[in-house]
Amino acid sequence: MSAISQQTIDHRGPDFAAVGLKALNGLKTIFKTEEHVFIYPASGTGAWEAALVNTLSPGDRVLMFETGHFATLWKKLAEKLGIKAEFIEGDWQGGADPDQIEAYLAKDTSHEIKAVCVVHNETSTGSVSPIAAVRKAIDSAKHPALFMVDTISGLASLDYQHDAWGVDVTVSGSQKGLMLPPGLSFNAASAKALNANKTAKLQRSYWDWAEMLGPNQTGYFPYTPATNLLYGLNEAIDMLHEEGLDNVFARHARHGAAARAAVRHWGLEVLCATQGQESGVLTAVKMPDGHSADAFRASTLEHFDISLGNGLSKVADKVFRIGHLGDFNDLMLVATLAGVEMGLKKADVPHEEGGVQAAMQMLA
Amino acid sequence: MSAISQQTIDHRGPDFAAVGLKALNGLKTIFKTEEHVFIYPASGTGAWEAALVNTLSPGDRVLMFETGHFATLWKKLAEKLGIKAEFIEGDWQGGADPDQIEAYLAKDTSHEIKAVCVVHNETSTGSVSPIAAVRKAIDSAKHPALFMVDTISGLASLDYQHDAWGVDVTVSGSQKGLMLPPGLSFNAASAKALNANKTAKLQRSYWDWAEMLGPNQTGYFPYTPATNLLYGLNEAIDMLHEEGLDNVFARHARHGAAARAAVRHWGLEVLCATQGQESGVLTAVKMPDGHSADAFRASTLEHFDISLGNGLSKVADKVFRIGHLGDFNDLMLVATLAGVEMGLKKADVPHEEGGVQAAMQMLA
Amino acid sequence: MSAISQQTIDHRGPDFAAVGLKALNGLKTIFKTEEHVFIYPASGTGAWEAALVNTLSPGDRVLMFETGHFATLWKKLAEKLGIKAEFIEGDWQGGADPDQIEAYLAKDTSHEIKAVCVVHNETSTGSVSPIAAVRKAIDSAKHPALFMVDTISGLASLDYQHDAWGVDVTVSGSQKGLMLPPGLSFNAASAKALNANKTAKLQRSYWDWAEMLGPNQTGYFPYTPATNLLYGLNEAIDMLHEEGLDNVFARHARHGAAARAAVRHWGLEVLCATQGQESGVLTAVKMPDGHSADAFRASTLEHFDISLGNGLSKVADKVFRIGHLGDFNDLMLVATLAGVEMGLKKADVPHEEGGVQAAMQMLA
Amino acid sequence: MSAISQQTIDHRGPDFAAVGLKALNGLKTIFKTEEHVFIYPASGTGAWEAALVNTLSPGDRVLMFETGHFATLWKKLAEKLGIKAEFIEGDWQGGADPDQIEAYLAKDTSHEIKAVCVVHNETSTGSVSPIAAVRKAIDSAKHPALFMVDTISGLASLDYQHDAWGVDVTVSGSQKGLMLPPGLSFNAASAKALNANKTAKLQRSYWDWAEMLGPNQTGYFPYTPATNLLYGLNEAIDMLHEEGLDNVFARHARHGAAARAAVRHWGLEVLCATQGQESGVLTAVKMPDGHSADAFRASTLEHFDISLGNGLSKVADKVFRIGHLGDFNDLMLVATLAGVEMGLKKADVPHEEGGVQAAMQMLA
Repeated sequence: MSAISQQTIDHRGPDFAAVGLKALNGLKTIFKTEEHVFIYPASGTGAWEAALVNTLSPGDRVLMFETGHFATLWKKLAEKLGIKAEFIEGDWQGGADPDQIEAYLAKDTSHEIKAVCVVHNETSTGSVSPIAAVRKAIDSAKHPALFMVDTISGLASLDYQHDAWGVDVTVSGSQKGLMLPPGLSFNAASAKALNANKTAKLQRSYWDWAEMLGPNQTGYFPYTPATNLLYGLNEAIDMLHEEGLDNVFARHARHGAAARAAVRHWGLEVLCATQGQESGVLTAVKMPDGHSADAFRASTLEHFDISLGNGLSKVADKVFRIGHLGDFNDLMLVATLAGVEMGLKKADVPHEEGGVQAAMQMLA
Repeated sequence: MSAISQQTIDHRGPDFAAVGLKALNGLKTIFKTEEHVFIYPASGTGAWEAALVNTLSPGDRVLMFETGHFATLWKKLAEKLGIKAEFIEGDWQGGADPDQIEAYLAKDTSHEIKAVCVVHNETSTGSVSPIAAVRKAIDSAKHPALFMVDTISGLASLDYQHDAWGVDVTVSGSQKGLMLPPGLSFNAASAKALNANKTAKLQRSYWDWAEMLGPNQTGYFPYTPATNLLYGLNEAIDMLHEEGLDNVFARHARHGAAARAAVRHWGLEVLCATQGQESGVLTAVKMPDGHSADAFRASTLEHFDISLGNGLSKVADKVFRIGHLGDFNDLMLVATLAGVEMGLKKADVPHEEGGVQAAMQMLA
Repeated sequence: MSAISQQTIDHRGPDFAAVGLKALNGLKTIFKTEEHVFIYPASGTGAWEAALVNTLSPGDRVLMFETGHFATLWKKLAEKLGIKAEFIEGDWQGGADPDQIEAYLAKDTSHEIKAVCVVHNETSTGSVSPIAAVRKAIDSAKHPALFMVDTISGLASLDYQHDAWGVDVTVSGSQKGLMLPPGLSFNAASAKALNANKTAKLQRSYWDWAEMLGPNQTGYFPYTPATNLLYGLNEAIDMLHEEGLDNVFARHARHGAAARAAVRHWGLEVLCATQGQESGVLTAVKMPDGHSADAFRASTLEHFDISLGNGLSKVADKVFRIGHLGDFNDLMLVATLAGVEMGLKKADVPHEEGGVQAAMQMLA
Repeated sequence: MSAISQQTIDHRGPDFAAVGLKALNGLKTIFKTEEHVFIYPASGTGAWEAALVNTLSPGDRVLMFETGHFATLWKKLAEKLGIKAEFIEGDWQGGADPDQIEAYLAKDTSHEIKAVCVVHNETSTGSVSPIAAVRKAIDSAKHPALFMVDTISGLASLDYQHDAWGVDVTVSGSQKGLMLPPGLSFNAASAKALNANKTAKLQRSYWDWAEMLGPNQTGYFPYTPATNLLYGLNEAIDMLHEEGLDNVFARHARHGAAARAAVRHWGLEVLCATQGQESGVLTAVKMPDGHSADAFRASTLEHFDISLGNGLSKVADKVFRIGHLGDFNDLMLVATLAGVEMGLKKADVPHEEGGVQAAMQMLA
């Protein structure tokens, strides 16, 4: 926040180049890529749109996987842009299933499907898709579709490897693992994606990669960037490397495990039912039948000043979400879990006391 | 800045509504409109695109006026979106000419032209277009085209009246008269524009007005807003009303007049050659032949720590621009002009000393 | 913090008066007094000295009560100033004892003792002295001594009533219940104390009340005040009244009770052994024999990023102190207690697990 | 300001040592001394008092020089502490006169005078005392008195050399050349001064050097320091060295010369009448007879939002003071002078226009 409130400098002036280059190069270390990362003054939804309009043409077919609410929103967005988006339906209790994707692609012998789009960390359910395995599935199906991944809420919290995992377009944003206010979003693009850009016919201007590449080479942007957020971005990248990305990932993994230990002790159910795919970024919890998750959330906010995430669309009022994201330490997690446990008591939701203690045992 | 660095709250939580509603309603008092104002987490270029894709269809003809670099950029953007943009050429030394616009529209008897697009305050030249007169010209031609105005750099510095001047879509942004960092941009839309939105066929998702209207009613947004900039926006609107919009406009007018007095005393030429259309936001100055404006700018930055605007495209290296924008007082203007005058001396640019004194006489 | 980083204004300029008057009057509502409150640009030790040098003469006898480390420091300070300070010895496990004070004063039939000095909230032990009862004791002994109270760490966390409790000089500071950085300290003075000031012969200049009274009437100070901390003070006073002082006191009382419940569950001992005198501001805990409190504190800081207070002088390395001070809520207390409990485990200190859960039961 | 608003850390905790040591050692580079520099959480008046009470005994004679208002205040303070302060009278138009000091000391053959106290940069008049020459005068008189210098407003703006100039106690503060809010003040002490401390009989506790020396060795303080201002101090020292102390001094000298050029062009008189002793920190200007300096100051504040310093005591309402202190550049000086010149016009004070232009010629 201190970095962000520095004076806004002229985005065409000589001092800006260092800010821009540091951000553009720094992001590569976070996406683990040698490729270009585009930065938009926009929130994550904009980067979803950018990924599609830069690589596809009207009427193109794309395959998506219904991991949850955000996958569904991305699909609707694609449809609004004139893309034929097809869904492999999911139960919102796990990540994307590589086998189903491989089977689906195998049937597309004429290669009409132009892209496979998967959400890495599905914020609405707390499930993580196995990105490397999806890549393998596409390869096994010998399918040439582009592979696009949304890791808006996963980047810089969960391990992510744009290059090693063979992703063509990675979509992300500033307000989760990068610990910034919303207002910046990103596209990391492979050479194959940049090539597709040349023939993609969807209209684009603000999102157009082609206009960005030139000015980006010297650290500049074709239109006014969100300068102050770039200050913050550069600071955030430094902070992540200071802690060490692997340490950051391990910390989130521990917090996820401790949160689940508490939930299970309470006798409640974690929404993600697929072992190994539970998110280290947030834990979605099913509310027992007959209890409103939203009433419970309102009560904990009032009594314990803690804001839990709500259930979205299909699981509205049925789940609440415990975030353990960004600059979060063991004691903050304990405090959060204590707020939930005391809230369950206040709201007369049947549960076994001692979840906090169970989490502490896992953490200690 | 202090407002912007407050903690980011949940944009779906109960406290956000008040922030959102204050911003949405507050902007109406700045645009002087009873209509809806859309807020994008994006820079001004995005709001240009939003105005077009929300109201037009592929292949539509629009009339634009070449006031300078930014009008030219808007035209290019329209063309990238598949719109047939036609230019009335200009000499970059004044605002849009209502007579030429009326004549152009009068010839379009089949009403193929769907929109007239004009830049209010052309930042590249320091000229102001007479918006009310352009409205009159459209009416005189009895032409049904939508009227779109870019006042990205004029809003909250120069008088602007969305409703009274009969504008259909006004485009603006956060980083000029609203004194914020870049990252927010706006569309104020008339009922006629909202109606056109229903049949407009250009693809849109991020920019789509239709998705915004519902959530905006209760102060929310369909996707993550730039929360921290909204804090700043609400503060900025309060500050503007505290000073009084008319006082703000008068202040900028005085500063423009004083800056021009200095320029003329130096024996240099103001780029805007049309009396009454000189901007109160910035003054562009022609560099004498044989002198590089950019070399001069670099020298003043180095010696006097003052950042002058550069000449853009057609006038690159031929003009420099003196800003007198936002939260600016008499002594800051004097300091700026002193930096220019001492810079002219340092760079051996022929000029009459005493321009600062001339400006002071006008200000005192 | 946001208030503190505003621009420093001229402390002799016209705008300063409002800042100064707001601070001087606002403090009265916190000390619960109609009398004058003096503000020093100094830390609390300075206000201790100010209380003495403004009211006493070289060689005067004063009676103090050994509640702990800070009472001892105040006594040493008095002695350095040439005052004969006499101690009623204490065991550091409770507040000052009114009966002992009454008995001591009763013996001073010639009224040589000029002041009784008591620490309200003894930060080194977590014990609270019964100030109203001490007043009664002085009255019962029919003794004319001035009554001075240090509530540096109690003010704005525990109930305090300068006027109703008949205190002559109250000493306090900015960095505890007022939630500010250190750098401001205070003397609230009764009419009797102001009268004593006129004949008190100890040297004084910086601390001299007489020089303050005149300028303070219009909101000014005789020398440069700590302007930025005054901004913060005014904000802090507003925040305290927004929550309501009684709510603030009740919150601290609950937190003290919950902390003690945890400590007792662990099988450890609270240093304060006098029921009803345990502090709501901090809880000092005895370390089991054979364990170093400081080694334990270092370990919890390293592993759980939580800073516990150290034992001071007599109880050095034998106690650690858990703060629950200032802007503190239930979940922050749980987090703190969790840090202690996990720390005890890490350091192999024998204890019963479940203290956090016991605290949660008390809080819920 | 950004540095100051960081979180307050525990001043007894392990992380504090680095902050404290950096401040204590950094100050030595600013005072240009190898000796100890004491840091008080207090404003400059406190450091005046500290210098005297640490080195003198009741009834000691000290020689002071009446350079202006602040020298007079220091004398009064000394008298309040029971010191016999003697004044060499001055006309408030220059610094201390070494010849008069030498003559005065020469007469004190019994060496009853224990200290010579001089103000380096007299803020009330804009005159600078020749400190090295005063040292020489004391030596020529072969007088053993301690030499004390107040450079509260000179340090880090004008050259100052505690060791090379043979000063025994240097007094300074945070809010001038160090560009911080008020709240820190300093004593740099020579070995001779530290020795005098051992026998000095004036009471002291808060100010006592002896208590500071021990804890300071490891970066700690005997009582609560103003932690957040220490953060700012460390940042300020870094900034000064980044620019280079000599560059800072040269900048202030240039600004003083330019300000005087403007004043003389206006036909007004600089208060400091001694050539070579005019301050680079501020310029005091005599108001023409028949005009109120304070009315003029109020008018320029209202119309041009610029705060000029007032005349103090003897010169109240007769002078106004133009500050050119701290982080100040050429254009800020021009703006300030323009505010004065436009203010003179507004207030109908007879003057020759063109002072700003004259200053610009000197600066360019």
